[in-house]
Amino acid sequence: MPQLRKLVLERLMRYYRFLSELTAKEEVQAVTSAQIAGALDVDPTQVRKDFSSIGLVGMGRVGFDTCEVCRAIRDVLGFDQPYDAILIGAGHLGASLLAYSGFASGFSRYGMHIVAAFDKDNRRVGRTISGCTVRSMKTMTTFVKRHEIRLAILTIPAEASQELTDQLVEVGITAIWNFAPTRLTAPEGVLVRNEHISIGLSEIAYHLKP
Amino acid sequence: MPQLRKLVLERLMRYYRFLSELTAKEEVQAVTSAQIAGALDVDPTQVRKDFSSIGLVGMGRVGFDTCEVCRAIRDVLGFDQPYDAILIGAGHLGASLLAYSGFASGFSRYGMHIVAAFDKDNRRVGRTISGCTVRSMKTMTTFVKRHEIRLAILTIPAEASQELTDQLVEVGITAIWNFAPTRLTAPEGVLVRNEHISIGLSEIAYHLKP
Repeated sequence: MPQLRKLVLERLMRYYRFLSELTAKEEVQAVTSAQIAGALDVDPTQVRKDFSSIGLVGMGRVGFDTCEVCRAIRDVLGFDQPYDAILIGAGHLGASLLAYSGFASGFSRYGMHIVAAFDKDNRRVGRTISGCTVRSMKTMTTFVKRHEIRLAILTIPAEASQELTDQLVEVGITAIWNFAPTRLTAPEGVLVRNEHISIGLSEIAYHLKP
Repeated sequence: MPQLRKLVLERLMRYYRFLSELTAKEEVQAVTSAQIAGALDVDPTQVRKDFSSIGLVGMGRVGFDTCEVCRAIRDVLGFDQPYDAILIGAGHLGASLLAYSGFASGFSRYGMHIVAAFDKDNRRVGRTISGCTVRSMKTMTTFVKRHEIRLAILTIPAEASQELTDQLVEVGITAIWNFAPTRLTAPEGVLVRNEHISIGLSEIAYHLKP
């Protein structure tokens, strides 16, 4: 299978979420590309193309076997190969991600487990948030090395995040999930996922424009 | 100008963010589509097409005037036509959005102002978060009608969110920014922006897969 691109991966995730929600409500054995496309506002051809790219073939008019599709997507995206993550910045956003991490339907469902949270603010160090104790930033690099952590989630102010990224890469982090409102860069081979919540405002502001 | 589609709007937002960050660091009078494309991992042809769709024309090899591009995007997306929003659900995620709302570089920069927060938990009612007092859910519909609010931000558990959405639409809300991990539906003409933070895990899990 060739390397899949970001947008394909995101669409696969959307298909997976949609099918999970659908099958949680009722037993659905088969689903057509048109059904998925209609619910998610993409083109049916796109759905079939994405499915075909991960080896899924439909059964003519019946469509696709829902279980098979879910299994294939979990498999391709690696949801059943768990990995640990650390979170840096235990403010409100950090706390909300920690809370979400614990839910059965939360991050752990996709393989990710937040095993430690760090903060440089001593008033936060020692607190427990959703079962996770906040540790001092001074112990962070040792922790990453000892536990061979590869993913760091950043929920810290924008100013500090590039410097921290460089430091994280140095101690072995190969993926960064960045919630700071700035674009981070990292060496090739290190994935930086910049999560810009405000992107949503483009659609909203445009819709509300008088 | 024809109605712009969601993905075009999101790309325009990304261009805007990129140019804002670029010009905040140094004075940059012109930028080429190749520069933008390279930084944001899109095709240069796509950048030029998007710009052309909002009436922007480049100056040959020199590229595009950065100020003109920023102004045009602000104008198209309506950032300078401020609008009020309410937030429902004053937990961790709600609090982090309220905090972000207040920053100079936060949501208000894109025209959005969160003017009230609501929660059904009486222990939260009366608290002040980032300058915003949490109100009782019982007062929500009256507030929306009185202040002619059109945008509601939902940071509540998934189970309650569809019912609340129906209620919000009834009292005049025309845009919903949903952070609950479920897809919400609403009548035509009402924008629902489902913000699924976990979508990012598709790319991350795939990258980390052994």
